[in-house]
Amino acid sequence: MTEIPKDHPRYESLALREEITRCVEAGITSRQGLIAHGRGEAIDYLIGEKTLPSALEAEEAAVAALLTSKNPVISVNGNTAALVPGGIVELAELVGAKIEVNLFHRTEERVARIKEYLESFGAKDVLGLNPDATIPGLSSERAKVSKEGIFSADTVLVPLEDGDRCEALIGMGKTVIAIDLNPFSRTSRMAHISIVDNVVRAIPNMIKSAKSFRYTRVIDLLYFVYAFDNRKNLEAAVEEIKRGLDEGRLEESSGYSKLSIW
Amino acid sequence: MTEIPKDHPRYESLALREEITRCVEAGITSRQGLIAHGRGEAIDYLIGEKTLPSALEAEEAAVAALLTSKNPVISVNGNTAALVPGGIVELAELVGAKIEVNLFHRTEERVARIKEYLESFGAKDVLGLNPDATIPGLSSERAKVSKEGIFSADTVLVPLEDGDRCEALIGMGKTVIAIDLNPFSRTSRMAHISIVDNVVRAIPNMIKSAKSFRYTRVIDLLYFVYAFDNRKNLEAAVEEIKRGLDEGRLEESSGYSKLSIW
Repeated sequence: MTEIPKDHPRYESLALREEITRCVEAGITSRQGLIAHGRGEAIDYLIGEKTLPSALEAEEAAVAALLTSKNPVISVNGNTAALVPGGIVELAELVGAKIEVNLFHRTEERVARIKEYLESFGAKDVLGLNPDATIPGLSSERAKVSKEGIFSADTVLVPLEDGDRCEALIGMGKTVIAIDLNPFSRTSRMAHISIVDNVVRAIPNMIKSAKSFRYTRVIDLLYFVYAFDNRKNLEAAVEEIKRGLDEGRLEESSGYSKLSIW
Repeated sequence: MTEIPKDHPRYESLALREEITRCVEAGITSRQGLIAHGRGEAIDYLIGEKTLPSALEAEEAAVAALLTSKNPVISVNGNTAALVPGGIVELAELVGAKIEVNLFHRTEERVARIKEYLESFGAKDVLGLNPDATIPGLSSERAKVSKEGIFSADTVLVPLEDGDRCEALIGMGKTVIAIDLNPFSRTSRMAHISIVDNVVRAIPNMIKSAKSFRYTRVIDLLYFVYAFDNRKNLEAAVEEIKRGLDEGRLEESSGYSKLSIW
């Protein structure tokens, strides 16, 4: 592993890159997960590696939705487990959600490793190892879920989900909350609440939000959920990304190289 | 490996993803290369997975620069070898450039595999296996180059290069041509000619350009090189990306999910 100096301007991003590579070696993250991580890195770079105001709003609505659900479930894949294992455990506890491991490239071994990894961060009863139900409309491996978990959930938080499964969950009548840095992705467009943010910032923000909601009345939480307009929120996210491009990060450069005949 | 249906709307992108994953298994691409590939995928998605007008202009200037150089070299890393092995060989022949394997995460074994892989596409005399010179200002492994290749080159084409090495090559007085989908990257800002395009489109475009330049006079080629303003070109790329966002790909969606109390 490469040692990254702490004063490197992009220390955090590089450290996450090392962590996720380590988790591939540990059998937690898949190779395709590395490519997905890269996609996230690029968009995160463009939005300035900070939570957009629209994302903060979505995060708040998402927590309110989780808190007012009967059987909320947090779906965890390899990248989520690698990036925010402790955060997932804490958030699940705060909002009373179950945790279920659900992989795009599913192997029994990887589900077991992720379960074990989350347990090492204090998780109890991690579902997903013995799936006993299927999501209609998905190919066999990806359809496998737990009856008491995702299958019967009324609300599912899916960080870093693929479009097909997001659509299938919505088809089942569930409220779907996505965390996805790409505001144009099918997942972002399909989900009821789409959080356009890096999962390493989104989960801590949601934990903070859950704590602040501790004494909030259900009626007020429901207001947060139903006043939220996902389409408007996504449009705001795109505008904020464009503004970021406008702020002219090209200007930050100390200088450009110039070809010269002389 | 997953079989992707040819009529999938994002077939090409998914096929490349499979190909680069295969190349990791074959020891050609590194794991960090997968993350880099993902970064490229995301920005390529935002620019609509097509060559921007500004990129086409940069590609033309790049070919003119290669054709008018005394000792041009194409630097090849694991991702470039995985994505455009045949294209690199053809372009090198057309512009009279040498090919040198130069890796960020260098191992002798991977250099040998990439050399062999390029040779299977018809490359002769691939440099890089026995480095006998060093680039000043870089840490040991990454500084290793061949004396008759990158070290003595007047122009280096570096697809998918990192900022440090790009800067070091410029410090050596070379003309540097970069292919990098991120217009804000240090490489893009440092290079003399920055091609903001996917390498799988850039190399074929450059091959076409090299063929069209076959009977062009040197003085006219030099005009293409020196009339090119990299800073203006990068600004145009950013404007084109913003326009792409403006064209409202959010609108393409068939519909948004809406939370409803009823």
